[in-house]
Amino acid sequence: MRRAKEESVSRSKEPGADFLQLDIGDAPARGRARWLAERLRLAIADGRLPVGSTLPASRRLAADLGVSRGVVTDAYQRLAEAGHVSGHGRGGTTVVSAPALPRPERPSTRPPTSSALFGHDPPGVDIFDRLRTTPARIDLSPGLPDLAAFPRAAWLRAERTVLNTLEPSAFGYSDPSGTPAVRRSIARWLALNRGIRVDPDEVIIVAGVSQALALIARVLRQDGITGIAVADPCSLGIRQHLNYWGLDTPPVRVDADGLCVDELSDSGAKAVVLTPAHQFPTGVVLHGDRRRRLARWAEGGGLIIEDDYDAEHRYDRPPVSALRAALPEHVFYTGSISKLLAPALRLGWLLAPTRYRDDLVLAKRNSDLGNAVLPQLVLAELLDSGELERQLRLLRRRHVHRRDVMIKAIAGRLPGTVVHGAAAGLHLSITLGSGTDDVALAAAAFARGVKVHPLSWYGQRPLHPGVVLGYAASPPGDIETGVAVLGTALRHLAGGNPR
Amino acid sequence: MRRAKEESVSRSKEPGADFLQLDIGDAPARGRARWLAERLRLAIADGRLPVGSTLPASRRLAADLGVSRGVVTDAYQRLAEAGHVSGHGRGGTTVVSAPALPRPERPSTRPPTSSALFGHDPPGVDIFDRLRTTPARIDLSPGLPDLAAFPRAAWLRAERTVLNTLEPSAFGYSDPSGTPAVRRSIARWLALNRGIRVDPDEVIIVAGVSQALALIARVLRQDGITGIAVADPCSLGIRQHLNYWGLDTPPVRVDADGLCVDELSDSGAKAVVLTPAHQFPTGVVLHGDRRRRLARWAEGGGLIIEDDYDAEHRYDRPPVSALRAALPEHVFYTGSISKLLAPALRLGWLLAPTRYRDDLVLAKRNSDLGNAVLPQLVLAELLDSGELERQLRLLRRRHVHRRDVMIKAIAGRLPGTVVHGAAAGLHLSITLGSGTDDVALAAAAFARGVKVHPLSWYGQRPLHPGVVLGYAASPPGDIETGVAVLGTALRHLAGGNPR
Repeated sequence: MRRAKEESVSRSKEPGADFLQLDIGDAPARGRARWLAERLRLAIADGRLPVGSTLPASRRLAADLGVSRGVVTDAYQRLAEAGHVSGHGRGGTTVVSAPALPRPERPSTRPPTSSALFGHDPPGVDIFDRLRTTPARIDLSPGLPDLAAFPRAAWLRAERTVLNTLEPSAFGYSDPSGTPAVRRSIARWLALNRGIRVDPDEVIIVAGVSQALALIARVLRQDGITGIAVADPCSLGIRQHLNYWGLDTPPVRVDADGLCVDELSDSGAKAVVLTPAHQFPTGVVLHGDRRRRLARWAEGGGLIIEDDYDAEHRYDRPPVSALRAALPEHVFYTGSISKLLAPALRLGWLLAPTRYRDDLVLAKRNSDLGNAVLPQLVLAELLDSGELERQLRLLRRRHVHRRDVMIKAIAGRLPGTVVHGAAAGLHLSITLGSGTDDVALAAAAFARGVKVHPLSWYGQRPLHPGVVLGYAASPPGDIETGVAVLGTALRHLAGGNPR
Repeated sequence: MRRAKEESVSRSKEPGADFLQLDIGDAPARGRARWLAERLRLAIADGRLPVGSTLPASRRLAADLGVSRGVVTDAYQRLAEAGHVSGHGRGGTTVVSAPALPRPERPSTRPPTSSALFGHDPPGVDIFDRLRTTPARIDLSPGLPDLAAFPRAAWLRAERTVLNTLEPSAFGYSDPSGTPAVRRSIARWLALNRGIRVDPDEVIIVAGVSQALALIARVLRQDGITGIAVADPCSLGIRQHLNYWGLDTPPVRVDADGLCVDELSDSGAKAVVLTPAHQFPTGVVLHGDRRRRLARWAEGGGLIIEDDYDAEHRYDRPPVSALRAALPEHVFYTGSISKLLAPALRLGWLLAPTRYRDDLVLAKRNSDLGNAVLPQLVLAELLDSGELERQLRLLRRRHVHRRDVMIKAIAGRLPGTVVHGAAAGLHLSITLGSGTDDVALAAAAFARGVKVHPLSWYGQRPLHPGVVLGYAASPPGDIETGVAVLGTALRHLAGGNPR
């Protein structure tokens, strides 16, 4: 056996240190301390060693470099004398000041103003990043559960259980469609809570509903589909998302019974995305007659994408079963734990008609090789132990109280408005007098420290003006104050006297 | 204030239970227990309540349904009498047998045989899933670190620290390019270990190198680029990945000095992906002269994608600085913690030339809204506390020992072969006599219980035959046995007598 050429060449040299990639082979034989001090000074100057960072212990760096310890302590001493580092011994040697070095200035990123948020109609593709990074005293944006209720202790307990029992091989690459344990647990959860009978092998674990839509967009485009009809109004995020992936989103009207299926049929669209259990943002439940019409449309070749984003959050109405339960070969079904635990977990699921499944798994594989394994297994543990059901019950009690607080506040502060979709979900919407400019109202509320979304953001065609109000994520006092501020802003806008 | 029509209608009905979405409004007024028993029987029959699952406590289900507890205990009694459930009291009522119900049979999925793995040239897009799901006594596939060394206790400790200090708002939607804490920590890690000076704002957190490539493919295609040159040989996974996203992968030769840059220039390719610090699979380091030629090519308009997949794993050679350090506006730089901690974490980073950065973040946002937050913060904690550096030192000691064991075994069992790329990384490659059929050799080794990859899998053009051998993930005994088996298979293939 021989070692190839490059090996023997490398072997003849001393290995360098990882720290700053120092290679003592670059140093002059006499003057190593000066060389080392200079390399460190440069690293301090250009930010690789920022003020406050600690230099390696001299003994360790000397061993890494293959020099005597004296070379390193000498170099550190030179830097200390120049005032760049201080301290030694157990506390370590710390960078205290940097030599001057010209550095390009980055433009400062000031938080957007009210006009930056509400000055564009329709809002731009960066609207959600703008909203997220814009502070407001009270945030009544829709879409978040009570984040303070995240079960930190239970999550950590479940993770300990997982880490105590995991085979080492589970830390390797894994099934791009998800780990078997969580797919079993999700299948069972969907059976019990959403009436869906599904083989665990058919469940695809995804990074939330947004990734599910990206994957669906990919396989539908491969199938020659260039547009997906959406309800009007519908989630702005979903519409922007589908547009990004090259799909048109023709609008279909929503009325008090849900999506107008006749209009969908007339549109010629081959696919539609909807939220039948609790239409976003109106909160309407798809009526039985519409469900039957939609089923006929699907059986005639239409594809349904069912975004079951908040169906578990149901307060005072009977459960609405998933479309997927009755039409497995016509419905892409997707949901997530964003509204049950936290959006920050980026964990959801996707069921697909059989003929699309393999292509979706291939798309998932080529997107990211599959979701991270540990959080999947922690979720399986939370599902199997009943912890997630307990969390849902806790959230429901808390959310329904906040909803009631909001409805009471609206009755007192916004007389004349109509409340929609309050029987379920994490938000409600209110409609206002038909002359109201709801974007101006949201801007006025924002100027007073309260963030709400104008209903017209969600429509492609003109809508009756209104506001979408999330209640789940805010404590009752904030809800009361926020609604009061909204009332003041509305009266101000209408020319009345602000209180 | 009025409640919209659908609200008041829903409110007049009793809420149903989540459990199986039972709605007592569907039950006849007299005969509720029979109705409930029948609904449960159906759920047991169709698999929504599998054998072994537990029914809700009668008190709770009764409260949920709004019926007296007697109705539920009566229903449970009926199921017990039919033999479908048993037990009660604190242990709960458990499903013990299901009524017969015809169910479609799924085709059984048997593990692939040797010919299914090695019978296709080139291997199909499902090769990695086939390999992963195919058991072998000893697995010397490349690409994995020592998974048994995953620092479970440190990970859990760091996660506890994170969960103890996190603001509730951190559980919401977050910056699609990553949390500020981990971007700071990664920027510092790259400065210290890879000589890269980067502002934390420029770091994009991604779900591993595979997602980085998918995002890069997207923005380059938007920019009119239809192909990315690859080294020949190179990672098969990367080639399949780029092809999936619609990019050609013209091959450019690799010799003992690394990528042949003149051939790259002649090819007319506008972009190239390479692994300069430790070429995969040959292990060659890009020579200084080639680096200079590559820099000139990039300054003339070429784009470099630097996959720095295992640069930290360096044993007996000086560090090789990243191309990105010298050419920030010409290099997409990507790496991950797959080889430092675990591929199952799906966590990596991407740096891009300034003009591509916003488009990449937009692509990341529309792919999955950003990586999960908790693992990012845990990684930041591990980086900042020095735990990751300790992990790297531990892995290095362990890997270098395993590598030495493998080289010794090769010397004893595979005389006449040449070892390449052993100075760094997690694998080495060996080249064999020029008449050897390396795919047949891999198949023969697999038939004897040892999984290795034939070198020719990685080439687009004919290559000198060889085998790629991962040593990092296997204990020394397995390495010795695996190499011995490979030697036996080779002699058998050459017509000699197997021992």
